[in-house]
Order: sequence, then structure tokens, then C-alpha cells
Amino acid sequence: MNKSRLETFSDGVFAIIITIMVLELKIPESTEFTVIKPLIPVFISYVLSFLFVGIYWNNHHHLMHTAKKVNASIMWANMHLLFWLSLVPFCNGWMGRTNFDKVTVATYGVLLLFCGIAYTLLSKAITKTHSEKTNLTMALEKGNIKGRISLFFYGISVPVALYVHPLVAAAFYAIVAIMWLIPSKAIEKALDGE
Amino acid sequence: MNKSRLETFSDGVFAIIITIMVLELKIPESTEFTVIKPLIPVFISYVLSFLFVGIYWNNHHHLMHTAKKVNASIMWANMHLLFWLSLVPFCNGWMGRTNFDKVTVATYGVLLLFCGIAYTLLSKAITKTHSEKTNLTMALEKGNIKGRISLFFYGISVPVALYVHPLVAAAFYAIVAIMWLIPSKAIEKALDGE
Amino acid sequence: MNKSRLETFSDGVFAIIITIMVLELKIPESTEFTVIKPLIPVFISYVLSFLFVGIYWNNHHHLMHTAKKVNASIMWANMHLLFWLSLVPFCNGWMGRTNFDKVTVATYGVLLLFCGIAYTLLSKAITKTHSEKTNLTMALEKGNIKGRISLFFYGISVPVALYVHPLVAAAFYAIVAIMWLIPSKAIEKALDGE
Amino acid sequence: MNKSRLETFSDGVFAIIITIMVLELKIPESTEFTVIKPLIPVFISYVLSFLFVGIYWNNHHHLMHTAKKVNASIMWANMHLLFWLSLVPFCNGWMGRTNFDKVTVATYGVLLLFCGIAYTLLSKAITKTHSEKTNLTMALEKGNIKGRISLFFYGISVPVALYVHPLVAAAFYAIVAIMWLIPSKAIEKALDGE
Repeated sequence: MNKSRLETFSDGVFAIIITIMVLELKIPESTEFTVIKPLIPVFISYVLSFLFVGIYWNNHHHLMHTAKKVNASIMWANMHLLFWLSLVPFCNGWMGRTNFDKVTVATYGVLLLFCGIAYTLLSKAITKTHSEKTNLTMALEKGNIKGRISLFFYGISVPVALYVHPLVAAAFYAIVAIMWLIPSKAIEKALDGE
Repeated sequence: MNKSRLETFSDGVFAIIITIMVLELKIPESTEFTVIKPLIPVFISYVLSFLFVGIYWNNHHHLMHTAKKVNASIMWANMHLLFWLSLVPFCNGWMGRTNFDKVTVATYGVLLLFCGIAYTLLSKAITKTHSEKTNLTMALEKGNIKGRISLFFYGISVPVALYVHPLVAAAFYAIVAIMWLIPSKAIEKALDGE
Repeated sequence: MNKSRLETFSDGVFAIIITIMVLELKIPESTEFTVIKPLIPVFISYVLSFLFVGIYWNNHHHLMHTAKKVNASIMWANMHLLFWLSLVPFCNGWMGRTNFDKVTVATYGVLLLFCGIAYTLLSKAITKTHSEKTNLTMALEKGNIKGRISLFFYGISVPVALYVHPLVAAAFYAIVAIMWLIPSKAIEKALDGE
Repeated sequence: MNKSRLETFSDGVFAIIITIMVLELKIPESTEFTVIKPLIPVFISYVLSFLFVGIYWNNHHHLMHTAKKVNASIMWANMHLLFWLSLVPFCNGWMGRTNFDKVTVATYGVLLLFCGIAYTLLSKAITKTHSEKTNLTMALEKGNIKGRISLFFYGISVPVALYVHPLVAAAFYAIVAIMWLIPSKAIEKALDGE
């Protein structure tokens, strides 16, 4: 029961984050192309951020599925993750509005890095509380490879955005997102086997 | 349990989409008619979009009722539907603010078409996962006729908005909405029979 | 299960309506009294609207408690109620920003009247579907007296706002709200007896 | 069931409050430091308010866990708490935007005081309804010491902000927040023992 309220609250925060980002798509007063043009980068960054928040919700869903009980450290680790995710609309809007300026793309990478670290801390807090290993926890651990690849890409995207080209860094983010969209067979099997 | 979190999250997104649209009704500083007049098309398009999101929520509700389990493809098909629905407040506001300009009415039709396709994909993802046929799934399949009529109307409304008159296309949207408001006897019976 | 999703969705809409109203309290750039002064009527109307939405949530809660199953007519009657409630932030903000101008106070009364009618229709849709009478339904029927008094006050507040004084009409709204705050002993007993 | 709807609604309001605060971080149009600089106090106050709302959600969670049934007085005590919490984004934004001006820091303290009093009233309403004492209620009563320390700090922070220095008062708020972050061993044990 404990757990279900944590999930309801988190689902609410996820739902609001993903939906208020669209408010950044300022409604134009006319239909002229010059008015619509600055919305294109904002829309692209919206698609990217929608994907990231969706991926986090999806992973959060699997992670919480492995938790049987919830204690204070899990609660605060979850709140810590939600804090960084709540900054996604800001960084996303900044990146879109400045047409993928290098500073904003690097900031977005730093934010994704913090989100990734917070997620890792949450998954550690859950593992620490639950000693028994289920098929799903083992599948999630394998899935950690994806998590480590993501952190690596986020980490290098910061200097890449600043010193190579911001669009190369943005491409890195897209690659990470697509990697997560490919469903993990191990997780699917473990969930089926339950 | 899996399924209930998907529903909670989707309900949150539906609730936010339907409610933030009202923020487009910019509060006037006075009560003069010249100040209120531009709000009339915004209000009409709000009513229309409220109906559409309400219809989608209603159908989503029935569709999810037929699903016994949830896998990655259902999750992402659902996220895909929510993505297009999340753009309804933007297109709705644009249409209202430009007083049903033909380009914005056509864009709204394209968006409804994408929402309709995403809904069809979601219902296919669910059917694929569940082999057994219940009364409700069969009733929903019959209800697909409504879905196909909607897609047809959305499709023709785009050229109609651009080359005939935007208000004719807007009338098509209203007809589709009213069609969905008439409850399907087959679905009601199937739900009762359970 | 059917019912629980209707409640989750409605709770989401109620929660968002009640919270986005606070966005009307535009944050001042300084602490000078001339800057804060126009916020006072906005704050008073916020308190009033918070009460009304809270009362509706409370009554909705009791009403749904009496429903055992949900059909299309209940769903749409509920959506209809949420539609009028979704306009509360707009009318509330308009009333606050124009410092309780008579036109806006009358409009607020019209909106409360529509909300009240929509609530009555929802409660009729539920009664029609459920033939058996429980203690709670009978207590709610008695509670209808409160509902009728409210509709009466909303109805006369419109001409009162326009032709007597808007603050008299606003006082009527406050009286109705206070009347609802006094808990109904009949409902409490019926809920206890379950 | 009664209780679960109260929790869903409250979770929705908590989730929205915590997320709309981030809208106060106005997205800058460029990446120049002069443009970003005024965001720093807004960001700091955001972190502080996120913590406070998170702490209230956490405590609300524990408090509701002790309630077996919900009556009208609990419902309205809960609504009263949500009312004051709904003003956090406003006071938070005002404090951030005026760079921790003494009047706004004192107002924030007054608001926290009202929130604290409302929380105490809610916990009294629950205790009154439930005569039996569980381990958790007793642990929560001990936890009341934290609550009293908080009220004391909020109370003195108002004159401190006005007559000593606003940053001293802000430091008091931070101390209170950190105090709540330290998990109560008694509560953890009581929850474990269930």
C-alpha cells in the first residue's frame, strides 16, 4: 500500500512533467512561416524530451515492480530522481529556444547525467532493502549495461557539445533514446515468467 | 498491477491535457465586448477539443479493459498515442487564436488523423498480445467501423479546410465527435454481460 | 475497476483545476503595496473558488461512493460536470482581476448554476442505473435540499450582481459555500453504518 | 476505499504543486551570464520549496497510513492543508524573484507556519477519530517534537527576516528541511513491525 502511493505520486509528477513541456511550444498568432520557423527546434527538442521522460517512466515502472516494500531511503532516492526530472522542461525549453546552442546542449547533457545518477542511486536503495534475487532483478541488472552506456554517452556529450558541435551531442542523446526503445528480451521474459 | 500503473499514468496525462487547454482562454482585463470577442472562437475550439480528449479517454478506458497484461509494445504504443494527444492543446489554441484559419484547421485534422492512427496501433498491439476473444473485444472490433469513419473524415477534412472552407472541415470534426457521443449498444451489452 | 478509473481521472482533473487557479496570483516583481494591492481581490476569489472546487470534490466523492457500476451515460454526465468545473479558473481569474466587476460576478453565478445542474444530471444518471436504495443514497437525497438551495442562490445571484451590487452576489456564494462546509449528520451516519 | 480517493486527490495536488513551481524558472532567451544570473536565487528557492513539499508529502503519507477511516472533519482538515500548500509556488516565486527580499522571506515563513498548523490540525482530526493507539501513531507522536521545533523556527524566522537578515531566516528554513530529511528510526521501526 505504501508502495502504491509512491507510485501514484510519481506517476502524477511524470505525467505533469511530460505534459507541461508542451506549453513551451508557444502558440503563434498567425500562420506565416517566419512565425512558425523558430518553433521547429522547440518541437524537435520536445520530441527528444518526451522520449526521455517516457523511458524514465518505463524504467521506473520496472524498477518499482521489483520493490516489495518502501522505506525512507527509497522514498528520498525517488524524490531526488523526480527533482532532476522536474528540470527537464526547463533545460528542454532552453535548448529549443536557443536553437540548440552549445551551452544549452551541454547543460541538457549534465541534467541527463544527474537523472541517470539519481536513477542508479534509487535502484541501489531498492537492492539494498531487498536481499532476495528474482528473475526480474537479475534481468534489470543485465539491463544496467544500457544504463552504463547511457551515462558514458551523457558524460562525453558535454565536452562534445562545447568543443566539437552541439548537434553531434544531440545525436548522442537520440542514439541513447533509440537504444532504450529497443525492448529488452530478458526483462520481457522475466515479466512473462512471473 | 502492471496495467494499473499504465492506466494511472495515462489518466494523469489525459487529465492534464484536458485541463491545461483552458489556460488558452486568456483572462481579459476588462468586461468590454471588444476584449471578449476574440475569446469566442477560442472557446468553441476548447469545447471541440474537450470533447475529443474526452472521447479518447472513454475509448482508451474500454480498450484497456480488454487487456489482461501489458508488455513493452503496448507501453510504447500507449506512449505514442499520448504524444499526439499532448499536441492537442497547441493545435487547439492555434486554431482558436487565428479564428479557424484554414492552415490551422487543416493542421488540427492532421493531428486528429495521427491520434486516430496511434489509437489503431495501440488496439493492434493489444489484440496481438491477447489471443482469446471476449465479447468486449468483438464489440470493440465492430466499433472499429466508427474508427474508420473518423479516419476517413479526418483525412478528407485536410484538403476541405485548405481548398473548400475551414468551417466545413470544422463541421466534419463536430460530426465525428457527435457520432462518438452516441453510445455503442454492443459495447454496453458486452460490459453488462461480464 | 471501471469505476476506479473514472475516479482517478476525475481526481486528476479536480486536483489540476484547484491548483492551476493559483497561477492567476501573478507573482509581483517587488514588495511595494501598490504592486500587491491588485492581488487582494484575486486572492479572495481564489479562496472562494478553492472552497467550491473542494465542495464539489467532496460531494463527487460521496456520489460515486453510491455507484456500483459505471455506464456510458454516467461517464458522459461526469465529463459534462468536469467541463463546467474546468471553466472555474477562468471565471475566477476574471472576477478577481476586474475587482469583482458586476458582469464577471454574474458570469461566475451562471457558471456555478451550470456546475450545479451538471451535478444534478450526474446524480440522476447514477440513480437511474442503480435501482436499490442504500442508506447513503437516501441521505444524499435529503442532502439534495442543500443542492436546491444552492441552485436557488446561484440563480438569483445573477440579477443581484447586475442590478443590486456584485458584492451582495459574492456574499451569496460565500453563504452557499459555508452551508456546504457544515457536515451533513445524515451522510456521516450512513457512511458509518456501512 | 474512501481513504484511497483522498490519497489519490492529495497526491495529485502534491504532484502538481511540486511541478508547477518549476514554471517560475523562466526560460532565458540566450546563454549570457547576465540573463542567467537572476535565475540563481529562483533556483535556490525552488530547491528549498521542492524539499518542503517533498517533506509534507512524506509526512502526509505516514499520517494517512495511521488513519483507518475518513470522515468530513478529516477531509476538510486535509483540504485546509492543501490550501496553504497550494500557495507555496506563489511565495516561493516571489522570494526567488525579489532575490530573498526581507518581506518575501518573512511571508514565506508565515506560510510555512500556516502549513505547519494545518498539518497539526489534520493529525488531531485523525487522532480524534481513531481511539486505538498503534506503534506508528506513537512513533508519530514522538515525531511531533520535530513538528514543534519546526513551528518554533518558522515563528521566529518572521521577525528575524524583517529585523536581522533575510538570509538568516532562509538558513533557518534550510535547517528545518535538513532536520526532516534525517529519517526517524522510531517511524521506520514501527512501519517494519507491522
